[in-house]
Amino acid sequence: MTQRYAIGIEFDGRFYRGWQTQQVGVASVQATLEAALSKVANHPVIVHGAGRTDAGVHASGMIAHFNSPSIRTERNWLMGVNTCLPESITLRWLTPIRDDFHARFQATARRYHYIIYNHPRRSSHLTGRATWHYHALNAERMHEAAQHLVGVHDFSAYRAVACQSNRPVRDVHFINIERRGPLIRLDIQADGFLHHMVRNIVGVLLAIGQGDAEPVWAAEVLASGDRSAGGITAAPDGLYFVDAHYPDALPRETLGPSWLSAWPIA
Amino acid sequence: MTQRYAIGIEFDGRFYRGWQTQQVGVASVQATLEAALSKVANHPVIVHGAGRTDAGVHASGMIAHFNSPSIRTERNWLMGVNTCLPESITLRWLTPIRDDFHARFQATARRYHYIIYNHPRRSSHLTGRATWHYHALNAERMHEAAQHLVGVHDFSAYRAVACQSNRPVRDVHFINIERRGPLIRLDIQADGFLHHMVRNIVGVLLAIGQGDAEPVWAAEVLASGDRSAGGITAAPDGLYFVDAHYPDALPRETLGPSWLSAWPIA
Repeated sequence: MTQRYAIGIEFDGRFYRGWQTQQVGVASVQATLEAALSKVANHPVIVHGAGRTDAGVHASGMIAHFNSPSIRTERNWLMGVNTCLPESITLRWLTPIRDDFHARFQATARRYHYIIYNHPRRSSHLTGRATWHYHALNAERMHEAAQHLVGVHDFSAYRAVACQSNRPVRDVHFINIERRGPLIRLDIQADGFLHHMVRNIVGVLLAIGQGDAEPVWAAEVLASGDRSAGGITAAPDGLYFVDAHYPDALPRETLGPSWLSAWPIA
Repeated sequence: MTQRYAIGIEFDGRFYRGWQTQQVGVASVQATLEAALSKVANHPVIVHGAGRTDAGVHASGMIAHFNSPSIRTERNWLMGVNTCLPESITLRWLTPIRDDFHARFQATARRYHYIIYNHPRRSSHLTGRATWHYHALNAERMHEAAQHLVGVHDFSAYRAVACQSNRPVRDVHFINIERRGPLIRLDIQADGFLHHMVRNIVGVLLAIGQGDAEPVWAAEVLASGDRSAGGITAAPDGLYFVDAHYPDALPRETLGPSWLSAWPIA
């Protein structure tokens, strides 16, 4: 009898052209994970993830599901799959779940963190893990600006030209921006995200944070409905998929990049 | 007229066979830094560091000095040298200093952090940056054990067999061990360290922390004077050279790995 499993995955996006398998010969997290799961399951496994991520974007709490008739303990799945995976991908948890659970279609919310290293000098320890911004940023000002984006809005001005979504309306549940020393963390949750939406929001907030625009500009860009009215698309380096929400109770042992564990969560 | 400069350096040790240049064709932090400084100074530059580090060991606050007759502003040194360096090494600060300052011989204290990621599953974001330990550790117990090592002692039992130092006596100023979520940080300062001393101390503390030995074992190993009485040599991954002390006032803008910036320092 086939069992469905929900899984939590952490990955370092620098080594992959994003989550989703797009073409043969290009490393994706999904294909690498499917290969490891297939080896342990001893049959081909297909994985469905809660969201797609761009090349270079990380995850601490990607959620996905797969099916398998193979009998394995939770411990055997975890140890076996992590042994087959490169160190850049880790299976954090696994739990049996009802047959009609769907990691993508049933997700009611997705949450991302964006980490900025705000210091005149780069950090050799944060290359690829945080976005380096050397102009001084005012995090309170960025937080104030971000509040204009909370709620149900047409985010056409914040989506990539290449975005394939049919509808540009999204419900942003919250955006919180906080500074700890040289690190600034943006914590954003929405029912879903358009292509490049978080990175385009960060692009506008960086301009506001360094004093090139007023906080209200975030609202003006939103109202324009015009992508060309916005700022740069911020680098993928600082972006982490940290969680997805479902009607089901799922283990949620990590939230945010593990190297930021000292930062109290939620 | 030649000017002496003190500098602060951050590096990711995974890409180097340690700080010191040992042989041609083997990447060292010192040789890579000297090449970049020489380019900006427009003459060959020799760098003297506060301490040597093993292959794979990192630094957030290595201190060194060099001489140059070339006229450059602080900003020009910093921007020029960082442009010439790979991302794995960063010149954090530079300051003109008196001619008889010596980064190695005048250091009155060196300080290291050792970061342990204590979780049943590895972290894909901490590969090479922290030491993964999957058995549950009791940080209070490790801290208690470490107090036996504070003060002036013969550390023969904690030094590598290959250690070249003439005298095995060191003065450990403090050792503090703290947990924040899955991260455990050991903060240690001494007048100087023997070869592998911190990593051998951590090896003993890990055995104590996971309950294989009592805290007093750290003192028993010390009293034995016998390296074979001790534990494993812990991996270099979690070790960071974070500071050195001098009679001179120096900029000390970083303390500890920058990815742990959210952890209040000192």
